[in-house]
Amino acid sequence: MTDIVKKETISANSNVLKRSANNDVENEYQSPVNVKRPVIVPACKPKLRYTLLKTGLCYDVRMRYHAKIFTSYFEYIDPHPEDPRRIYRIYKILAENGLVNDPTLSGIDEIGDLMLKIPVREATDSEILQVHTKEHLEFLARTPQMTRDQLLKETEKGDSVYFNNDSFLSARLSCGGAIEACKAVVEGRVKNAMAVVRPPGHHAEPEMAGGFCLFSNVAVAAQNMLKSYPESVRKIMILDWDIHHGNGTQKAFYGDDRVLYISVHRHELGKYYPGTIHGNYDRIGDGKGEGFNCNIPWPCGGLGDAEYLWAFEQVIMPMCREFQPDLVIVSSGFDAADGDTIGQCHVSPSCYGHMTHMLKSLANGNLCVVLEGGYSLDSIAKSALAVAKVLIGEPPDELPEVKQPKSEALETIDTVIRTQSKYWKCFKGNHANDGCSFKKKATETIANRNFPLQNAIRQQQINLLMSEYSFVMLPLINMGLQDDTVMCSPNVYDSQAILICVHDTPEIWAQRSRVTGNIDPSTSIIVDTTVDVIKWGLERKYGVIDINIPQSLNEQDNYSAVTTAQEVLVFIWDNYLKFFPSLNKVAFVGIGDAHSGVVHLLGHRDTRNIVKCAISFIDQKPLRPLIPLVDETLADWYYKNSLVFASGENTCWGSDGNDNKKPRKKFGRVLKCDSDGLNNNFEEKFDEATDFILDAFEEWSDSE
Amino acid sequence: MTDIVKKETISANSNVLKRSANNDVENEYQSPVNVKRPVIVPACKPKLRYTLLKTGLCYDVRMRYHAKIFTSYFEYIDPHPEDPRRIYRIYKILAENGLVNDPTLSGIDEIGDLMLKIPVREATDSEILQVHTKEHLEFLARTPQMTRDQLLKETEKGDSVYFNNDSFLSARLSCGGAIEACKAVVEGRVKNAMAVVRPPGHHAEPEMAGGFCLFSNVAVAAQNMLKSYPESVRKIMILDWDIHHGNGTQKAFYGDDRVLYISVHRHELGKYYPGTIHGNYDRIGDGKGEGFNCNIPWPCGGLGDAEYLWAFEQVIMPMCREFQPDLVIVSSGFDAADGDTIGQCHVSPSCYGHMTHMLKSLANGNLCVVLEGGYSLDSIAKSALAVAKVLIGEPPDELPEVKQPKSEALETIDTVIRTQSKYWKCFKGNHANDGCSFKKKATETIANRNFPLQNAIRQQQINLLMSEYSFVMLPLINMGLQDDTVMCSPNVYDSQAILICVHDTPEIWAQRSRVTGNIDPSTSIIVDTTVDVIKWGLERKYGVIDINIPQSLNEQDNYSAVTTAQEVLVFIWDNYLKFFPSLNKVAFVGIGDAHSGVVHLLGHRDTRNIVKCAISFIDQKPLRPLIPLVDETLADWYYKNSLVFASGENTCWGSDGNDNKKPRKKFGRVLKCDSDGLNNNFEEKFDEATDFILDAFEEWSDSE
Repeated sequence: MTDIVKKETISANSNVLKRSANNDVENEYQSPVNVKRPVIVPACKPKLRYTLLKTGLCYDVRMRYHAKIFTSYFEYIDPHPEDPRRIYRIYKILAENGLVNDPTLSGIDEIGDLMLKIPVREATDSEILQVHTKEHLEFLARTPQMTRDQLLKETEKGDSVYFNNDSFLSARLSCGGAIEACKAVVEGRVKNAMAVVRPPGHHAEPEMAGGFCLFSNVAVAAQNMLKSYPESVRKIMILDWDIHHGNGTQKAFYGDDRVLYISVHRHELGKYYPGTIHGNYDRIGDGKGEGFNCNIPWPCGGLGDAEYLWAFEQVIMPMCREFQPDLVIVSSGFDAADGDTIGQCHVSPSCYGHMTHMLKSLANGNLCVVLEGGYSLDSIAKSALAVAKVLIGEPPDELPEVKQPKSEALETIDTVIRTQSKYWKCFKGNHANDGCSFKKKATETIANRNFPLQNAIRQQQINLLMSEYSFVMLPLINMGLQDDTVMCSPNVYDSQAILICVHDTPEIWAQRSRVTGNIDPSTSIIVDTTVDVIKWGLERKYGVIDINIPQSLNEQDNYSAVTTAQEVLVFIWDNYLKFFPSLNKVAFVGIGDAHSGVVHLLGHRDTRNIVKCAISFIDQKPLRPLIPLVDETLADWYYKNSLVFASGENTCWGSDGNDNKKPRKKFGRVLKCDSDGLNNNFEEKFDEATDFILDAFEEWSDSE
Repeated sequence: MTDIVKKETISANSNVLKRSANNDVENEYQSPVNVKRPVIVPACKPKLRYTLLKTGLCYDVRMRYHAKIFTSYFEYIDPHPEDPRRIYRIYKILAENGLVNDPTLSGIDEIGDLMLKIPVREATDSEILQVHTKEHLEFLARTPQMTRDQLLKETEKGDSVYFNNDSFLSARLSCGGAIEACKAVVEGRVKNAMAVVRPPGHHAEPEMAGGFCLFSNVAVAAQNMLKSYPESVRKIMILDWDIHHGNGTQKAFYGDDRVLYISVHRHELGKYYPGTIHGNYDRIGDGKGEGFNCNIPWPCGGLGDAEYLWAFEQVIMPMCREFQPDLVIVSSGFDAADGDTIGQCHVSPSCYGHMTHMLKSLANGNLCVVLEGGYSLDSIAKSALAVAKVLIGEPPDELPEVKQPKSEALETIDTVIRTQSKYWKCFKGNHANDGCSFKKKATETIANRNFPLQNAIRQQQINLLMSEYSFVMLPLINMGLQDDTVMCSPNVYDSQAILICVHDTPEIWAQRSRVTGNIDPSTSIIVDTTVDVIKWGLERKYGVIDINIPQSLNEQDNYSAVTTAQEVLVFIWDNYLKFFPSLNKVAFVGIGDAHSGVVHLLGHRDTRNIVKCAISFIDQKPLRPLIPLVDETLADWYYKNSLVFASGENTCWGSDGNDNKKPRKKFGRVLKCDSDGLNNNFEEKFDEATDFILDAFEEWSDSE
């Protein structure tokens, strides 16, 4: 076999030489036919930067000396979360998985073929002073000599920090470890590195400790890399995936365009630790640093792989590729990990692997991962192992089933992109008008040439109702609402049966230009489901009342619209319906949030003589409970005489839509639609809804 | 130093033991104080799948035997692009860079520590018949015995294929190489693999050769992996980044849900090779395979890193993570590479590295890259080297400066996401209503409850003009347009000066819900720039005419709107303006595409006695040339008496916006705005525009 291959090899080569004899395209074959040239021997030394290098590892048992001084028995049972065992557990799992060869787990120097031990040393004063104030350093330098009482007093005074006589040593080692890890990467002694250090650093501001952090390790390391390697390290990207905002790191580089700081963290309007507004999306840097600070502030906990990967692919990676850092440092808290009771998020170990893998593609692979928070010992160990495996060259493990990112996260990411689109080309194709001020602009009347779109849409409805169906306005007195809020058919006063349609502004289907971010009016349509209801009512000779409830401007919960709906319905009942002479049957059709007006009326007035049924199409809008002010049996009555159509995506069905969670009776008879979206729900259930009304009106004899 | 460390190590350990003596949280430290336990020795065999394995490489000189039979001298000078040297050049660059240790470049078996040679064999009949028809196999099996004339005849008959007596051997080897490479990955003999094979495969359909391809190598390999490893290979993702659509591969798995085929390619409405509609975004698979075929069809050439990375992060990676393949095969043509004259795109070698790096994160790293097209020998060599380096474990090189993705690509990706959002959860947060049929739906009147948004917006304008400024309609007779197209101020008949504002439907600023994809009417506003123009005119006691030109439905070039604008302007000139008794000054303000009506009028009628100037705000809309039908001097006159404000992003400034390309005189005096977007242009230039009108009307004496 080998012989045959060899023969063929030769003939193949000669074939090529022959073929290309007259061929001018290629240099390497310009020799004339049959003149033998020596074969060009390629240089064979691998031109590889990293494949032959190990991954660096910083670990030193002395960083475990810093510990909270116990003052009560309960602290033994429920130890402080920033526990000395954190770094030990990470080192242990690396050893258990063979990444580190250290059978005694004592932190030896020779740790095998995969990782290279980077000796940890204390950060020097001058290194620390690159970021921190002299006062802060001097304060910490006094702690080794303090008495137990003094230490406890300082612990009491600080913002979530503790001190013992070893704190200063541990903090200097932690900081020095971060520096040495970065240095080994920058100098090319390792391909990348992981610093398993504590106490953490990212909450330590230049002038004070905080949030379990004494020195701002990553900031000190970054600052010193910029200083020591001005040629090879001009730009650094710090990615902080700790669940808390890295206020200290942000502060250290807020005015610096050499360091791009990106933090993904729980923010919750500033209520989550560190509890300030500095972690909000609109903190984008200052002066020269404007545009070089990017906060991705989650509005809630409970997020996981889907949201973090979304953030990476939509924001972090495009931005970093544009920034082109020379070094990437990860402020790697593992408190967003599944199982961390402080972070309450669900990032899987393999997701940490995937994120690490993505970051490896930056900065020619110059990546240094520095431990920050993370308080479940099991979770941080598993997460750190996943990161370390990817660092040494393993592919990340397959992700557990990826879910759809939560809408809260989607909205956060959208806001961040809009905000940053001012500074980053990669987001230009994604911007919605001009950035952060959009919502503000949209609700301000900055000029009298800006008109709310919903007014125009209502005008469209009015025109149709008036011209096609001769509707007239039904006045609302002293309510401060638009004249066109309630319209009714001309026969309404004398009708026996009235159909009342209470609705939000109709849906608009629109395409947004990727280029300008604006809506293209030529392909946008208003989908007005109410028209079908009204036509159906008129065909059956019912009186028809159309009530439009515009949505609230600038209110998350649509509060004032809901209030308006409630007031209008009660007003119409008290001032009109009660007095209509022939009226004996009323059916409500509520569409969207406006249906809350119907539920409110049915609980606040006894309408049971006349009202026969209430149908609602709520899509993904919240359910509204009937509050039975008249008597207790109202909720039962409502359940029997209502249909509430909710889309499968409505949160009332539980978090994943598959639970057969059943809403309670006070919400009416809630039915799940197979389709999604108001219009689709409506198409699916229109016949069921109208049949229900006919049934309630006892009109089957007429119609069938 | 070592001594100190050791001592500290011990004391640290004992410290921990002491500390955790009373600690119930952790299992490993539950022994009582001072009772020594043996230290737990972790198992130290690395639990690593890939780090210790090499990357596989398929290469065999016999695949160079397949070559075009030369029939004229010119084929020596300009050889067929699918040239036998393609695979040699790739092998050579791997050797030159030390990835392969083969000084003679003859394809030896022992190629060093980084890559493992995978011997190439001929695919068997039964393997090939997994995808291809018996007729196709039998036809190719006859080619070794054919005469030169027969071969030339078959070459003539085929669709861009050629044959010689070695074609069958080379094709079987190429196909067998793909199979063996995949096999080595699946069996874990290598960490991943690269098959440097030819002839390529992805255009070969089950029943016929085509596009330089004889057997559908990747399809045959995939099909056989599914068959041979039913336990470990249940799902395969094939990513085809060749610049051409892989019609053969698509066809092989169009009804198969086990293979997700994703292709990124030039399509150009089906005009680009292979020249059919099968590569369009709406080809999403059939039957069980519905949703498992994804085409990303570029509408043009000239694309590069920005667009490919965008496609990866927005579409490919999310989709693949959701699919969770067991094996990823890349149909790796390098004809999208910078320098390829057939592909005319600009994907850099490092971008190929980045894309490979991303794919490595899937399927536990089970990745096999199989060569397809790519016709610049230099480009394919550099690209393949970048891919190979990432396969063996190098980080991808830094990208050249990443540009903003082109709007054509953004739109393509949007369309693909909308189309696929029906099948993939990951796109749920990104969908615009329900998928592929959106545009169709938007322009159909599927029910009489759908109304074009632009009608509602015009209604809003009419209401304002009538109620605030007492405007009346100016009738257009026999033009088949809406009554409300032209409105005028009551004084228009007697005015000496008239300002005519011709505009598109105003801009809408809107936020789209990430969750439902619908527009939120409560925060959407109509930004009607015309109001400022009209108010300014009325304040100066001019007559004012407002002309609304709705945009064309479902037309890319807005053709019918442009025609309407032209007809309306001519009609108004011929039937009104010419006969107004006192009129001696007219100024036009054109906003958007509608300004083409003004340009048309000024070229088709001699309006110079009365028309003093024409201002246009066109944002990113196309320039319109004046066609001087009346006399040749009109273009000069237009240049002197016009201002055309275009945004900096308008394509009239050349492709990157920085050229000082100057539009020609017939387009009027075109000025670049600093701002972007119609509304911003308008705010920036409003004073300049009105000053220009005052100047033209010689009214400075009055106003200053």
